Amino acid sequence: MQTINTLRQRYQQIRSTSEKICTPLITEDYQIQSILETSPPKWHLAHISWFFETFLLIPNQTSYKVFQSQYQILFNSYYETIGKFHPRAKRGLLARPSVEEIYAYRSYIDAAMENLFDYLIHQPDEKLMFFIELGLNHEQQHQELLLMDIKHNFSVNPLKPAYRQDLATNNSQISHPITWQTHNAGIYQIGYSGSEFAYDNESPQHPQYLTSFKIANRLITNGEYLGFILDQGYQQVDLWLADAWAHLKQHNWQHPLYWQPDGDNWLEMTLAGLVKLNLHAPVCHISYYEADAYARWAEKRLPTEAELELALSQHAIAGNFFAQDYLHPQAAEKSGQWYGDLWTWSSSSYQAYPGFKPLAGSAGEYNGKFMCQQMILRGGSCVTSQNHLRNSYRNFFYPHDRWQFSGIRLASDQNI
Amino acid sequence: MQTINTLRQRYQQIRSTSEKICTPLITEDYQIQSILETSPPKWHLAHISWFFETFLLIPNQTSYKVFQSQYQILFNSYYETIGKFHPRAKRGLLARPSVEEIYAYRSYIDAAMENLFDYLIHQPDEKLMFFIELGLNHEQQHQELLLMDIKHNFSVNPLKPAYRQDLATNNSQISHPITWQTHNAGIYQIGYSGSEFAYDNESPQHPQYLTSFKIANRLITNGEYLGFILDQGYQQVDLWLADAWAHLKQHNWQHPLYWQPDGDNWLEMTLAGLVKLNLHAPVCHISYYEADAYARWAEKRLPTEAELELALSQHAIAGNFFAQDYLHPQAAEKSGQWYGDLWTWSSSSYQAYPGFKPLAGSAGEYNGKFMCQQMILRGGSCVTSQNHLRNSYRNFFYPHDRWQFSGIRLASDQNI
Amino acid sequence: MQTINTLRQRYQQIRSTSEKICTPLITEDYQIQSILETSPPKWHLAHISWFFETFLLIPNQTSYKVFQSQYQILFNSYYETIGKFHPRAKRGLLARPSVEEIYAYRSYIDAAMENLFDYLIHQPDEKLMFFIELGLNHEQQHQELLLMDIKHNFSVNPLKPAYRQDLATNNSQISHPITWQTHNAGIYQIGYSGSEFAYDNESPQHPQYLTSFKIANRLITNGEYLGFILDQGYQQVDLWLADAWAHLKQHNWQHPLYWQPDGDNWLEMTLAGLVKLNLHAPVCHISYYEADAYARWAEKRLPTEAELELALSQHAIAGNFFAQDYLHPQAAEKSGQWYGDLWTWSSSSYQAYPGFKPLAGSAGEYNGKFMCQQMILRGGSCVTSQNHLRNSYRNFFYPHDRWQFSGIRLASDQNI
Amino acid sequence: MQTINTLRQRYQQIRSTSEKICTPLITEDYQIQSILETSPPKWHLAHISWFFETFLLIPNQTSYKVFQSQYQILFNSYYETIGKFHPRAKRGLLARPSVEEIYAYRSYIDAAMENLFDYLIHQPDEKLMFFIELGLNHEQQHQELLLMDIKHNFSVNPLKPAYRQDLATNNSQISHPITWQTHNAGIYQIGYSGSEFAYDNESPQHPQYLTSFKIANRLITNGEYLGFILDQGYQQVDLWLADAWAHLKQHNWQHPLYWQPDGDNWLEMTLAGLVKLNLHAPVCHISYYEADAYARWAEKRLPTEAELELALSQHAIAGNFFAQDYLHPQAAEKSGQWYGDLWTWSSSSYQAYPGFKPLAGSAGEYNGKFMCQQMILRGGSCVTSQNHLRNSYRNFFYPHDRWQFSGIRLASDQNI
Repeated sequence: MQTINTLRQRYQQIRSTSEKICTPLITEDYQIQSILETSPPKWHLAHISWFFETFLLIPNQTSYKVFQSQYQILFNSYYETIGKFHPRAKRGLLARPSVEEIYAYRSYIDAAMENLFDYLIHQPDEKLMFFIELGLNHEQQHQELLLMDIKHNFSVNPLKPAYRQDLATNNSQISHPITWQTHNAGIYQIGYSGSEFAYDNESPQHPQYLTSFKIANRLITNGEYLGFILDQGYQQVDLWLADAWAHLKQHNWQHPLYWQPDGDNWLEMTLAGLVKLNLHAPVCHISYYEADAYARWAEKRLPTEAELELALSQHAIAGNFFAQDYLHPQAAEKSGQWYGDLWTWSSSSYQAYPGFKPLAGSAGEYNGKFMCQQMILRGGSCVTSQNHLRNSYRNFFYPHDRWQFSGIRLASDQNI
Repeated sequence: MQTINTLRQRYQQIRSTSEKICTPLITEDYQIQSILETSPPKWHLAHISWFFETFLLIPNQTSYKVFQSQYQILFNSYYETIGKFHPRAKRGLLARPSVEEIYAYRSYIDAAMENLFDYLIHQPDEKLMFFIELGLNHEQQHQELLLMDIKHNFSVNPLKPAYRQDLATNNSQISHPITWQTHNAGIYQIGYSGSEFAYDNESPQHPQYLTSFKIANRLITNGEYLGFILDQGYQQVDLWLADAWAHLKQHNWQHPLYWQPDGDNWLEMTLAGLVKLNLHAPVCHISYYEADAYARWAEKRLPTEAELELALSQHAIAGNFFAQDYLHPQAAEKSGQWYGDLWTWSSSSYQAYPGFKPLAGSAGEYNGKFMCQQMILRGGSCVTSQNHLRNSYRNFFYPHDRWQFSGIRLASDQNI
Repeated sequence: MQTINTLRQRYQQIRSTSEKICTPLITEDYQIQSILETSPPKWHLAHISWFFETFLLIPNQTSYKVFQSQYQILFNSYYETIGKFHPRAKRGLLARPSVEEIYAYRSYIDAAMENLFDYLIHQPDEKLMFFIELGLNHEQQHQELLLMDIKHNFSVNPLKPAYRQDLATNNSQISHPITWQTHNAGIYQIGYSGSEFAYDNESPQHPQYLTSFKIANRLITNGEYLGFILDQGYQQVDLWLADAWAHLKQHNWQHPLYWQPDGDNWLEMTLAGLVKLNLHAPVCHISYYEADAYARWAEKRLPTEAELELALSQHAIAGNFFAQDYLHPQAAEKSGQWYGDLWTWSSSSYQAYPGFKPLAGSAGEYNGKFMCQQMILRGGSCVTSQNHLRNSYRNFFYPHDRWQFSGIRLASDQNI
Repeated sequence: MQTINTLRQRYQQIRSTSEKICTPLITEDYQIQSILETSPPKWHLAHISWFFETFLLIPNQTSYKVFQSQYQILFNSYYETIGKFHPRAKRGLLARPSVEEIYAYRSYIDAAMENLFDYLIHQPDEKLMFFIELGLNHEQQHQELLLMDIKHNFSVNPLKPAYRQDLATNNSQISHPITWQTHNAGIYQIGYSGSEFAYDNESPQHPQYLTSFKIANRLITNGEYLGFILDQGYQQVDLWLADAWAHLKQHNWQHPLYWQPDGDNWLEMTLAGLVKLNLHAPVCHISYYEADAYARWAEKRLPTEAELELALSQHAIAGNFFAQDYLHPQAAEKSGQWYGDLWTWSSSSYQAYPGFKPLAGSAGEYNGKFMCQQMILRGGSCVTSQNHLRNSYRNFFYPHDRWQFSGIRLASDQNI
């Protein structure tokens, strides 16, 4: 168990990171909700403060006075057991509260949280500390959402503005051939069993029998994916799931989300604006539907969730994360690419582990109620904080979603 | 024909009025598009500049350099013959150009227009002057749209912010009984025949035969409309047109757009925020469907367009207009209420006058192509500039629209 | 006033005509509702019987026992003041009552109506006779709807079946040039003033001032319309109303409803199945949007409703009607083509005449509540019963509708 | 491997069963498609014949002449690699081919299949025999679909007609308490490993580790489910998955699909028409969403697919199947209820088994492309042919589907 002071420092660091992510934005940028799935940056900033207010300050600080009672509704995301909430589709219509008021709200919450930390030094309370830790992990998830949403918001603007011009760049022009990591059949323990923080959905650890398999040491590159496109991958119906084909036809998908043709070449929208597509970097912003079709085309398959957990457990959690400040996937080193860069689609749907128990109370709505029709991704991405990730970490999106930083890692049965 | 200098002064005055309307807004407010029909205030500011750029500067100033070529697409509203345009539904997603850049665009256009005025002093050109006048009338229309759209944008925010706290107020608590202005049957000349500026859709003047009728000297009040509501007006199917009833059921209409119940009383959203409903002021933000149902309930009818033109022609153009700075309809004086306050629904659909010719070129798209399924309103409103109005002025909206400042004036056959 | 016996004979003749129209159908054909706007033939057969049951038998025959109480809901079309009705969109899902049961329902109503006629011989009652006449006119309208709907139902079937193989054909290969009938300006009496049956919406007769105009003596042919298509009429945005263009783009209209390309030629779906398009026959199943665009392309305009009434009043009501048994428009004789063949679009929206009073009671829902957003057509068609038509007859459809037998007749100001 | 003669007899028996299912229908009933998911009975009859024509006769009988070339499109369900197909949503608009023509098509196919059987006696061909077996299993699935779809088609008719009045009934009024079958943790072989026919999606057999669990010996009854309703189960948001709650709100679900309140009691639509709800019979036509919410309310969970396979493997395949001619679930005996009555929802999504290979060619579209976002059901139902089922049989529907004969069986961890 970390000390109060460590937790307080983490609080300060994580809270300031959220604001740092928004520094390059102008006031207008804070306002945009480009699709139903995204939220305006200012809404994120308020919601992650609301989380501390709702789960920590209101229930535990009797002297705490809410900042503005209507914020309880405006910045509740989806916690039905807490009360009503502003419709998700209309977050972008909230001109008020202003960006300035939302920063004032954040400061107000931070001051109240400092009081709570002072109190905890004298009266340690593991449950409160757990909820603070939950709030910090929640805020880290929203940091990733902020970057995903900002990218999408900027991409729908015909001016194709850059979020930042000063991002780290690498642009390696080398693609090393895939090598395959092999695993034998057997019973493996899957899920989290440690004593640090982990989400409820990672527990309980439980045995699973896996047949032998092999798995690629790196993500599929833009160049490899272009091979699929040039082979008429988006036109070959037998490569696609039925739901995928219907979605592709309805939305006229012909390439990954942020690609756009430029004569014979391709451009890609990034957080640094529109750039030339690097064929050696991993293909990103890929839906499950596309990842699955690509794997079928490549005569391989996607790894299951358990296979990914096992394969990743052989490697240290290191790679191209948020702190590397690329905010874009980079070409793999020869030694491979396991964590970071892009969340890897698994072929497993998001379901409860045997014996799963959601957190008690409203926090139980955090994860459990989404265990339907979504697919698991693993391994973190270039917009994930490294210290937020665990080997057992379960990310999940609908199979048609592709505004998250997601990519493709192939697997196959061992003898193929 | 006005002189160049008069026109230049009008240009300066009208252009600065647009900006003055936006002064109370914070940056976030400039960004909102609350429904398909409204546009973000900053889009309006840019579009009305685009109009001068497109119809005056680009075709006539050979040395003119466009401010930003993509603005040609972003700020074209619906001129198909000019080129592509940004989808109307996505105007609210344009974080960039920033508000600041749009003001810079306005200044740039104003400077170029000053050059054009300098030129015109030496080289008078009636066609150019006509297009300047058209651009100014266009800008005045958008001033009204700005206030309508701001009102709607603010109304969808649960915080119910006020656009301005300092608006003029009257709150007269007197409702004078309606008196009826009578007109004999006969042939009347309808439409514009003067030599000042008028829209193409007001011409040509032409004879119409009208049967005798009488028409109310003031608008229907909130109190009178409440009588309709309390008599179950929104539940009596035989009061409503078939399309109206379907729309009412689909959208669950139970009262005018900006009313909300407050215990046994009613509140009304205004540009000054949420206020107590004044039963003596005219009922506003009424759709044609509601106006028609109210008239049937009252055993009267709505006036035709020609009846309104004839009736209004008996009065000077004066009343509660934009300059009065109420930005809200006011209770009628005993002497009646003819112009201003609220646009009055007619029972006439928007159609071409016999012999109508749209303007040549792209300006022909200004009015003519909307002559289908919309209804005519007459008389101006509290957000209309008085000098923008004419007796022959034809405003038009779809029968379900109600975010405009519209109200109800009754008429009937003379012997009823 | 016609005698009871005449009315009884008309009743028998009109009722048997409805059934005769259905004779070529197989049981499966009775069941289809191909779009929201159409109804299954068996629903029509039941509804027109329901009309007599509801407006004549139930209120006036105390001994009358309803055939099946649920039919009161199932076969009410839209009479809100009578009670609930089965949703229009789901008429095609009513496998039961069977076709056989619906014919039994018809016989039952006919027997009860015979009793009513017997009674009326002894107790003449003008009001009852009026409602019988209304019911017969209603049934004649549904005979036209039956043929329109059968045509549409058959057209959506890829097998393109023929409703009848034995229809009269003419296939004249001659197009006579249009000649123009001219009319002077003046005040004209518009609307019905006789003492025979007419719908409430044709009254009261009232004066209208018309400016001078000229009007074509025949309908536009397929060949002429093909000229519009070949001149890229469906691609020239400036020919179209704004609503029309949006509709055209959304539904990908490229030609009239029932045309389909066949190499370099065109086929047309008719009640006799798919046939080669006759370039000399009138273009049919044209929406108002298309008629309006064609007229603009031809540098003419559509006639107003009053112009059509005046122009048609110069001619006897004769032409290609239902009894001619073509059930398809035929090439015009040199002498012109005024009534029959196709309903002619006017440029006038469907609105109440000055002083209009709907029928009292539920029959008031027959016409008045549709006076919004629809356009007037005049003159009857090849599926209209000749004795159903009057010069003052007002037909109406939405501007996008085109499954009715509608065509184009041009007009223009006289000096053009 | 069965002999040709056995297969031929199976062919004759199964083909005639499809027709027998349709015997109680009148021609009108054959035509209805009440929702997108259902198909008109006549379409089913044609499609299952098309399957033999397409997969057997056309590729293997060189002398075979197709019955009607357009049927290749009209009656292709979703085989993209075979060619175009009529839109699913418009199957109900095909008045033609008539019911009679479809029966003629069936006879034509049967005659051609008899020729193929004659040929096979002399030239045995395992691949052909496999496809015949596949076609027969396909037809058996459509027999179940026919009964599901007929039930839904009849249910949307306000007359609530009965499909059959002569169905077997039991109406036992006893509910035996649930007893729990327990299973120890261990590695189990899941999937099909025999040499008889099985679908590709049941293979390969593979080991799975299961933790210990217990599972109910019978389905949940209407009475038990009513307890959930009376406890406000449909109003308690924390019982529902997020997607489930959104769906429930959108469609206003308040009870199972075919229930309707009748004063203080409930009626239920069945294939015998509207009957009083038997509280002792299993609750049926339950979506996954409802089954999952019920299990949460009952503080249990749904079994996984593998748990169900293991639990069912302890019992003989016997119970209330199609041949029992109830066509409705019956109250459980004291000894329990394992197969038949209702398909049991598992908590597992439909995904490929490790090493899954779809059938080669177009038959590969049969199952594999649906492995996304659907949930597995096990055990067969009262409208399933007993000889169609296997212990390893995987049925699948979307979590919101509920027109299939589906019910609830609870499970839990063993120590609960």
